[in-house]
Amino acid sequence: MSHQALKIVTIGGGSSYTPELIEGYIKRQAQLAIKEIWLVDIPEGEQKLNVVGAMAKRMVKAAGLDWEVHLTLDRRAALKDADFVSTQFRVGLLEARVKDERIPGSYGLLGQETNGAGGIFKALRTIPVILDIVKDMKELCPNAWLINFTNPSGIITEAIQHYGQWNKVIGLCNVPVMAMINEPALINKELKDLTYKFAGIDHFHWHRVWDNTGKEVTMDIINQIYADKNNGLPKNIFDISFFREQLEQMKMIPCGYHRYYYRQTEMLEHSLEEFKNNATRAQEVMRIEHELFTLYQDPHLDYKPKQLAERGGAHYSDAACEAIASIYADKKTHMVVSTLNKGAIPDLPSDHTVEVSAQIGATGAIPMTFGHFQPAERGWIQLMKNMELVITQAAVTGDYGTALQAFIINPLIPSGRHAKNLLDEMLVANKRYLPQFAEKITELEQQGVTVHDQVAAAIDNQIGVL
Amino acid sequence: MSHQALKIVTIGGGSSYTPELIEGYIKRQAQLAIKEIWLVDIPEGEQKLNVVGAMAKRMVKAAGLDWEVHLTLDRRAALKDADFVSTQFRVGLLEARVKDERIPGSYGLLGQETNGAGGIFKALRTIPVILDIVKDMKELCPNAWLINFTNPSGIITEAIQHYGQWNKVIGLCNVPVMAMINEPALINKELKDLTYKFAGIDHFHWHRVWDNTGKEVTMDIINQIYADKNNGLPKNIFDISFFREQLEQMKMIPCGYHRYYYRQTEMLEHSLEEFKNNATRAQEVMRIEHELFTLYQDPHLDYKPKQLAERGGAHYSDAACEAIASIYADKKTHMVVSTLNKGAIPDLPSDHTVEVSAQIGATGAIPMTFGHFQPAERGWIQLMKNMELVITQAAVTGDYGTALQAFIINPLIPSGRHAKNLLDEMLVANKRYLPQFAEKITELEQQGVTVHDQVAAAIDNQIGVL
Amino acid sequence: MSHQALKIVTIGGGSSYTPELIEGYIKRQAQLAIKEIWLVDIPEGEQKLNVVGAMAKRMVKAAGLDWEVHLTLDRRAALKDADFVSTQFRVGLLEARVKDERIPGSYGLLGQETNGAGGIFKALRTIPVILDIVKDMKELCPNAWLINFTNPSGIITEAIQHYGQWNKVIGLCNVPVMAMINEPALINKELKDLTYKFAGIDHFHWHRVWDNTGKEVTMDIINQIYADKNNGLPKNIFDISFFREQLEQMKMIPCGYHRYYYRQTEMLEHSLEEFKNNATRAQEVMRIEHELFTLYQDPHLDYKPKQLAERGGAHYSDAACEAIASIYADKKTHMVVSTLNKGAIPDLPSDHTVEVSAQIGATGAIPMTFGHFQPAERGWIQLMKNMELVITQAAVTGDYGTALQAFIINPLIPSGRHAKNLLDEMLVANKRYLPQFAEKITELEQQGVTVHDQVAAAIDNQIGVL
Amino acid sequence: MSHQALKIVTIGGGSSYTPELIEGYIKRQAQLAIKEIWLVDIPEGEQKLNVVGAMAKRMVKAAGLDWEVHLTLDRRAALKDADFVSTQFRVGLLEARVKDERIPGSYGLLGQETNGAGGIFKALRTIPVILDIVKDMKELCPNAWLINFTNPSGIITEAIQHYGQWNKVIGLCNVPVMAMINEPALINKELKDLTYKFAGIDHFHWHRVWDNTGKEVTMDIINQIYADKNNGLPKNIFDISFFREQLEQMKMIPCGYHRYYYRQTEMLEHSLEEFKNNATRAQEVMRIEHELFTLYQDPHLDYKPKQLAERGGAHYSDAACEAIASIYADKKTHMVVSTLNKGAIPDLPSDHTVEVSAQIGATGAIPMTFGHFQPAERGWIQLMKNMELVITQAAVTGDYGTALQAFIINPLIPSGRHAKNLLDEMLVANKRYLPQFAEKITELEQQGVTVHDQVAAAIDNQIGVL
Repeated sequence: MSHQALKIVTIGGGSSYTPELIEGYIKRQAQLAIKEIWLVDIPEGEQKLNVVGAMAKRMVKAAGLDWEVHLTLDRRAALKDADFVSTQFRVGLLEARVKDERIPGSYGLLGQETNGAGGIFKALRTIPVILDIVKDMKELCPNAWLINFTNPSGIITEAIQHYGQWNKVIGLCNVPVMAMINEPALINKELKDLTYKFAGIDHFHWHRVWDNTGKEVTMDIINQIYADKNNGLPKNIFDISFFREQLEQMKMIPCGYHRYYYRQTEMLEHSLEEFKNNATRAQEVMRIEHELFTLYQDPHLDYKPKQLAERGGAHYSDAACEAIASIYADKKTHMVVSTLNKGAIPDLPSDHTVEVSAQIGATGAIPMTFGHFQPAERGWIQLMKNMELVITQAAVTGDYGTALQAFIINPLIPSGRHAKNLLDEMLVANKRYLPQFAEKITELEQQGVTVHDQVAAAIDNQIGVL
Repeated sequence: MSHQALKIVTIGGGSSYTPELIEGYIKRQAQLAIKEIWLVDIPEGEQKLNVVGAMAKRMVKAAGLDWEVHLTLDRRAALKDADFVSTQFRVGLLEARVKDERIPGSYGLLGQETNGAGGIFKALRTIPVILDIVKDMKELCPNAWLINFTNPSGIITEAIQHYGQWNKVIGLCNVPVMAMINEPALINKELKDLTYKFAGIDHFHWHRVWDNTGKEVTMDIINQIYADKNNGLPKNIFDISFFREQLEQMKMIPCGYHRYYYRQTEMLEHSLEEFKNNATRAQEVMRIEHELFTLYQDPHLDYKPKQLAERGGAHYSDAACEAIASIYADKKTHMVVSTLNKGAIPDLPSDHTVEVSAQIGATGAIPMTFGHFQPAERGWIQLMKNMELVITQAAVTGDYGTALQAFIINPLIPSGRHAKNLLDEMLVANKRYLPQFAEKITELEQQGVTVHDQVAAAIDNQIGVL
Repeated sequence: MSHQALKIVTIGGGSSYTPELIEGYIKRQAQLAIKEIWLVDIPEGEQKLNVVGAMAKRMVKAAGLDWEVHLTLDRRAALKDADFVSTQFRVGLLEARVKDERIPGSYGLLGQETNGAGGIFKALRTIPVILDIVKDMKELCPNAWLINFTNPSGIITEAIQHYGQWNKVIGLCNVPVMAMINEPALINKELKDLTYKFAGIDHFHWHRVWDNTGKEVTMDIINQIYADKNNGLPKNIFDISFFREQLEQMKMIPCGYHRYYYRQTEMLEHSLEEFKNNATRAQEVMRIEHELFTLYQDPHLDYKPKQLAERGGAHYSDAACEAIASIYADKKTHMVVSTLNKGAIPDLPSDHTVEVSAQIGATGAIPMTFGHFQPAERGWIQLMKNMELVITQAAVTGDYGTALQAFIINPLIPSGRHAKNLLDEMLVANKRYLPQFAEKITELEQQGVTVHDQVAAAIDNQIGVL
Repeated sequence: MSHQALKIVTIGGGSSYTPELIEGYIKRQAQLAIKEIWLVDIPEGEQKLNVVGAMAKRMVKAAGLDWEVHLTLDRRAALKDADFVSTQFRVGLLEARVKDERIPGSYGLLGQETNGAGGIFKALRTIPVILDIVKDMKELCPNAWLINFTNPSGIITEAIQHYGQWNKVIGLCNVPVMAMINEPALINKELKDLTYKFAGIDHFHWHRVWDNTGKEVTMDIINQIYADKNNGLPKNIFDISFFREQLEQMKMIPCGYHRYYYRQTEMLEHSLEEFKNNATRAQEVMRIEHELFTLYQDPHLDYKPKQLAERGGAHYSDAACEAIASIYADKKTHMVVSTLNKGAIPDLPSDHTVEVSAQIGATGAIPMTFGHFQPAERGWIQLMKNMELVITQAAVTGDYGTALQAFIINPLIPSGRHAKNLLDEMLVANKRYLPQFAEKITELEQQGVTVHDQVAAAIDNQIGVL
């Protein structure tokens, strides 16, 4: 980047993650010539924005920095001449996540915000908004980089690149970060002495690892994971072991989210247990968020509180800071990001988004080649990538048949009338955030489709209460 | 073919289908210079071979033909200098099919002989046998064509081509045949006035249709299918409609077997209903077979009895005859067969087996290009084709982890401990026919794995009784 | 086609080939419900249009048919509601061909109208015109089929499909037709008893042949070609043998035009000999055309005169009639045509034009898969196809650097200052027909670039004289 | 590497380049725990081995190191338990290069050792030897890395990977090294502040460059290359400018060897000039080598003399040392190497060798994705890569037709009788080093094929004299 006075914008700035982001910038102050940080949010998030924004200002001040921290509801003012734009917003707030988790649960199906029916709906809500942001960026800051960590991160990045035709984007996820933090210790190594090769798509990738003598240590790590249960799973993933015989066959380490696909029965049982106990992750997060914002209101708190670690997205924001610093300072860092495939995985089209090991520098991400997968993994990844394409197409077109295809192809939703009823109910439940499906939703409402789960049905009235 | 005195061999000659095959040859007597028909079976099938073989002789005689009909248990003698070898055998007889259907059913999962756990096990049992046949053919009749209609036909053809390295093979299925018999009438057309383009893999393909003015009539047929329930489904597939919105999105006609994947819930319910009522298809077929063989024993019966139509595989044998005649007489017929892709479906590797519209003539099958699929269908077909590759690999290697991967990737088997227990139980239940897994099966038996379903557990003792 | 009263339009109707076309329609009168034939030409061709048009009318009358034959200079009137449009025009008339042949010759390089510098320039002149026709067709006859046999036929078809976004097109060439006419007799067979598989691009394809027993007879034909010099080469290709060792390695039969690439030295020598003797093909054709039009003026001539066979494009027009009849009557004929690849040749992109064996029926061309080439042929075809893409891009953009790239990549033009000078001189020589390069041509003229060959320089003044 | 006492072997150790190699090791002594350096040569090279080996020992001693330097003619003894094997041998010595350059010259064709007919023959001679080395390595040092810089480096690496089935290989070339040394200064930058992306095959690649603000500076470098003639070409490439319009169209920087293909006429003229003047590069190098070995004999010389820079292969040996150090010390360096494609260039098969930007560390080379080429470059690279495959196939099979195909597809050899005569003459001239073609060569000799160029014909008698 040529600017010596960086303007960094965060959309969804009122998020509870913001302190980690600010901490990340402070930690990298020598690498980043920051002048302005803009935290943007929507009117419904104004209160949180003010709380977390005030804390951000305290953190910057405590670090002895003269960075300007701007809080605003005016996205276009924030985007004007920005150098980096990071996106961490949640369309529909946590209330929408409650629905993503509870409505499928009420059908006896997995309720989860990036997998199954919930993940599809999170994408349907988010894609129109991100494409609108991209449209603004083309006008207001055409040279900026977009660092997306709004979930489902890979699908959102796909939409940005394919439909938004915007390639200056890096999609982030904390899952690879956590693997690289936790695994080296399992085999008494340091990360710097290992070579990691990740390949797949967001929340559905595998990796292999080698030590600095060139010896592959993937199986050593796997063996230690079975021996040591402290396996670095994200907080939101129930801990159930992979079948060892499966890992021995594939000779790769799946990501935590693979549990939903490789141990479908157990993950579903666990999800339904949470549903029954009114303890879905969204409900849990609401409680944590409440605590966090209570903390953030303390006018003496000027550092990231340790309680944030419980929130589940640890390292996400730090990864965003690292990506920004790597681009700005041309650091040529190894990171695992969502970016155009370009051949890194020859089993997938070269002009769509994948999540792979890449070198991050001034030109953005240069993916490292991974080569062909074996049949089982190839089948999975081709299915999942195409499902992403169906979802993005549904999100952009608002076509009901395409949304139905997404439900049918999703491996976590058994197809049939049950699935179709679920689709219909979720469309109605998400009415406010799915303008592209407005006509179909009206038709469904006229047919009497309503939300049956009481918690989900009630939640729209509680927005702002939380 | 240069021979003017054809020797045609049928392995599994004692099958109840044989009369349709013989009828097919008789119908094509002008195109086929047959000298010898050899019906081969194994000792367990000798009795049926004798019954159906005697009937075959009566049919040939009634047609006034001088063809020799040989009945034998000596496969090598039969293969010697053969021109065409058709395979319709069933490893483990109907008793194995009972297990394929009932054991998954006892786990609350789909019991079906070509889909789900049953289909995987049918492949695991059959592949070693077919590769053994190919080995014999290389030695005894290296110029012969192999016409396979043993199910799962596509997977078996894949194994023949990839592991057997034998490309003079045509894999057949009656599903496309039935579509082309039933659909034209729905739109008041004749088959000869339509252009059909099929693409996919066996039991998982789609097709589009055009009339002789070049107008696509795919949606017209779909509309009529919804209007007219007489939709030409194979006897063994429960009749449940596809979601109309899905078909309108894909603009193609799925095959009947797609119901298992597009209406998973309903198909499972139906399957479990059959399981509960001791009315699985295998049990039903045993009853039909018993009737058929009683009929066949009638020394006056010298034509294919109409009851055979109930058997489920109607047109399979006729398709085999048509393939043989098309090759022999270089008829350049349009047929839908399993053959090497060669680019017909650019979304799948060119050197693996697919099921597509092809021109059948003296050189075998020349696939017609279909072009790229849309994302939803591309995702499905890539998943399913790779699953086939995992299954064939498991069948050839006898590797437990690979078999487990096949179970996990199969969209009709929810992964998890349940699926693994099912795998283990089915391995033990199929012990006699899975020499490649012998070591693992012994280990499982030592761990106490047994077959729980009473019917399935008892059936080995009933072989020959039926 | 649904029309029962066909309107067929021929652009470039004043061509000397038209009688073959009319003969072709008459021959297929039972298959084609023709009502109107429109022959269109440009003002410069009006005289020839009148002569050949009058003869066309005599031919139709002599056949006892009531078809209307319209002669017009109004292309849009002709296109209105057309069912089939065939294109056989030559931008710049034979005068431009003289330049395509003589200017390269004056540089000591191959002068030929579809290969080398001449072929590139023929494409640069023709593509803007064909795209303009396509634009009209979208407006005036959006359901019509375009049958192109204007050369370079493959490149023109590529431009129609890629830049014109018009897929109802069949590109034709007489080279495969002639192979299938001449070769069967060499091995004492009839065409109907053989299976031909062609693959490549226009004027750069190979084929393999099998007999009706499935035996490959490619090498038998090759052997006979060496024994029998009557090898069915187009009239415009000098007869020099391929190296036998090369054909034995590739095990395919190249097309006649491969001589330019496989026997470059000899073909160049021959071309320069013709150049030196003022006997380039264009000059020869002008003489033939003069004779033909003298013949055509005979008010008693109402059949195709045998002298037309000398013209070089024999069977082109007949192939066009056959393509039209095959589409109209859904004949499902085997023809070798330029059409979208769709995977037929997996070594080339599936969304670009190739020339392959295809089934021609109501839906147009369905390519038959050929499979992968061996490395030598793969290298050649990938080079040549990409060269076509460079040429079409140059034609559409008018970019000088792209035209230069086309010259440099063309295997028959040694790169360097010589080639660049040739490019510049040909741009200036073709000024009238290259509006897209107007700016560059003006710049070149200002730099003093002129045409040095006297015949080529003089020819513009002779248009109409011939 | 796990060894703490490295054994490094150099095959062709008697080469004049060896001092650069030794200097490279000495320079990296902190990174490389060397115990033994083995210099291997063949009997014909023993004298040179002794001279240069003695000097290597002096250099090591002068550096104060205790490394053992072994000189041997026993390749197997050297390979035993080696950690790294570098190959810099020249089959047929410089005498063979004289033939590679002079015999084509005598036909009026380009004489060059890695392009045209000479390059093909260098590959045909070298591949059997390298495959023999690989065979030994599999037995004697199965964990060693092979660092190849014997030319044609890319083709040799292809043969090692494809036919030798040995993937622990890095193919090197000094051309990218020199670009990265020379270009940054042209735009007043340092290499560390730039991002280079190279893609192609050895001696036929392009690159793009970005600065540390992410701005592409490729065209800036191109502009400076035209302004500044000190362009870092290898010594053996005649300096002729690329056409600026071409580079502006491709927006990439070609490598120096592209001159042979982009300015064919001028490069040929220059080559023929050298031929005529008995000043081919081989003859020149012989003179330089003579001087170098005279220098090397000086018992006081214990450092790389500056005259070695004239030799032409500068930086080759240093690149080898850097590759070895990067693997050994897991440096994760950016280097441009020949390695398996794996998707880095999606336009080429993923399982063949390309030359691309890669990260070199303990696992060897991880290629960085480059993405698709534009049509012109894609056409060229697909041609050239397939030509490499034809050459390697000819080298392994000794099939004459395949060698002829290589000559015909080579863009620098106009096809025809001339080319075939050249092929025949070069086969005879290289008889001693082409055992795989023995039969054909005998046949050619019987037909009277002899070497016509006097220098080339005489040179075999001079071996050892030089």
